[in-house]
Amino acid sequence: MSKAAARSHTFTWQDPLTAAAAGLGLSGLEYLRKMAKGDLPMPPISVLMNVTAAEVEEGHAVFTAQPLECHYNPIGLVHGGFAATLLDSVMACAIHSRLPQGQAYTTLDLNTHYVRAITLETGPVRAEGKVVHLGARMSTAEGRIIDAQGRLYAHGTTTCMVFPGGQSHG
Amino acid sequence: MSKAAARSHTFTWQDPLTAAAAGLGLSGLEYLRKMAKGDLPMPPISVLMNVTAAEVEEGHAVFTAQPLECHYNPIGLVHGGFAATLLDSVMACAIHSRLPQGQAYTTLDLNTHYVRAITLETGPVRAEGKVVHLGARMSTAEGRIIDAQGRLYAHGTTTCMVFPGGQSHG
Amino acid sequence: MSKAAARSHTFTWQDPLTAAAAGLGLSGLEYLRKMAKGDLPMPPISVLMNVTAAEVEEGHAVFTAQPLECHYNPIGLVHGGFAATLLDSVMACAIHSRLPQGQAYTTLDLNTHYVRAITLETGPVRAEGKVVHLGARMSTAEGRIIDAQGRLYAHGTTTCMVFPGGQSHG
Amino acid sequence: MSKAAARSHTFTWQDPLTAAAAGLGLSGLEYLRKMAKGDLPMPPISVLMNVTAAEVEEGHAVFTAQPLECHYNPIGLVHGGFAATLLDSVMACAIHSRLPQGQAYTTLDLNTHYVRAITLETGPVRAEGKVVHLGARMSTAEGRIIDAQGRLYAHGTTTCMVFPGGQSHG
Repeated sequence: MSKAAARSHTFTWQDPLTAAAAGLGLSGLEYLRKMAKGDLPMPPISVLMNVTAAEVEEGHAVFTAQPLECHYNPIGLVHGGFAATLLDSVMACAIHSRLPQGQAYTTLDLNTHYVRAITLETGPVRAEGKVVHLGARMSTAEGRIIDAQGRLYAHGTTTCMVFPGGQSHG
Repeated sequence: MSKAAARSHTFTWQDPLTAAAAGLGLSGLEYLRKMAKGDLPMPPISVLMNVTAAEVEEGHAVFTAQPLECHYNPIGLVHGGFAATLLDSVMACAIHSRLPQGQAYTTLDLNTHYVRAITLETGPVRAEGKVVHLGARMSTAEGRIIDAQGRLYAHGTTTCMVFPGGQSHG
Repeated sequence: MSKAAARSHTFTWQDPLTAAAAGLGLSGLEYLRKMAKGDLPMPPISVLMNVTAAEVEEGHAVFTAQPLECHYNPIGLVHGGFAATLLDSVMACAIHSRLPQGQAYTTLDLNTHYVRAITLETGPVRAEGKVVHLGARMSTAEGRIIDAQGRLYAHGTTTCMVFPGGQSHG
Repeated sequence: MSKAAARSHTFTWQDPLTAAAAGLGLSGLEYLRKMAKGDLPMPPISVLMNVTAAEVEEGHAVFTAQPLECHYNPIGLVHGGFAATLLDSVMACAIHSRLPQGQAYTTLDLNTHYVRAITLETGPVRAEGKVVHLGARMSTAEGRIIDAQGRLYAHGTTTCMVFPGGQSHG
């Protein structure tokens, strides 16, 4: 293991619990828009995934992210967790954007289909999520990841449980 | 957004392509065992997920990881991508451990069920993956994430395509 | 389309709503055991899937089913819906078997992996389901389908929502 | 178990292997269109699911089906296998419709999200499938089930392996 090959990256983020607490007094859309505009900090996981921009509309969320070498897996490609994390983020945000103040959600399941490998050469990717079904106790969403040329890399679906805020799930 | 809340973490890793190239001349099990022992570097994504130990047997892989604040999502919990990334890792490694030299794989789909939220209080988690079906062209695996008390946090399944090494998928 | 090739099958079942109503006054395990013993009728979908035997323990359900020509798809094999239906049945029953009287469930998602084609030559298959996580508001289960030699044909997972009986979901 | 509650249904279908053999000499689209027009018989599983009409375009398939009492589960609703079977059918047909003569496919995984219960009162449902990604060795599709008013009941995704016709998978 050659010393010459070592490299490093420093990620900087804000306290996620402070932002989450601020979110309790807002509707999902208000909270996510403050985040997208930079009035509230992006969560640290988005910093780790190198998310560079976010847009949130009612029922719809888009994140732009730039893959880094530190996202690589042991077979020389960006790890599937990068796409799964982005899809989970935009699909959950799409659902969150439809919840009024006082409603919370938790992800129950996340299904990801991988159709093309992501590498550093892929360049920035666009993760898009949108609500498919909004219910009183559960909601579903779908998402996809494309590059600047519109080529598809991954797509997926999720089910979230919706409940009065503050409760834990399970 | 208070300056006082800012924090940072520096991750250090080795060139993932050098390790991947070394893997081409080894069986999956040989490659992964060298990684687990530290003779080859862990991939950077494992560094980002704070994987602290790995064990690989034929058809079976276990990673221990310690959640960090930088894995948090916007609602005050460890992001679902943390568990999805760990499950993808151990399930893919379980399949990889059964492949002879010259065979490669790519993940086609990853299904994750979340049953309990992970937080910093959870402490280190153990992600376990094992092969369910090993076929000539496709394989499946299952995985789960538990804490030191054996409590379940997430579980999932995957399908990987298996093919002669060097080819891309799709 | 030759007349000579036509064939038919007559399925006979009992009113499913009468059995379902009887189930409201029983725990899940009591209800399913009455069904397995023949004291209450099997649901019609099980008749269509040619389920010939059922065993239910707490958290565990097994159905034996014999594939028929009428389960075939347009490419000359038993349709994937046969395995999906059996897996959904045994996984949901495994969860149902853990619910006290007054608790109901509904399936939120069903993930099936197909690893080997089922044909008439496969003979009777055994579908096994067991609970993975039992929660107050959601539960998960896993299942698999094997033949008399123990060869695997399909496996899967499910998430069910659990709620006070009588309510609808969504 | 009252005798008075017994009811039955006779399903009639054509030899599925004769149709499948005819399909080997046709492109996927030609084969499925002959089936939709009635020049080749619908597969028996479609008869069991009470599919009353099918339309197939390149990369797109729609089946109309009428739920029957014999599709009911033990909790008084149409079984989840009904929707899973229809989704698998239309998604696989959507992929099949893009395959040239000599190419075959097999379903690797099927993910179904249930968002609303189907009952006899639902009336006829429309299952729609469309290709998401068409690759040389694997393809993905998505599907949904709606009623005559456009209300959503279930949606899902699938991955199919694509290979030269005549080979088995796994």
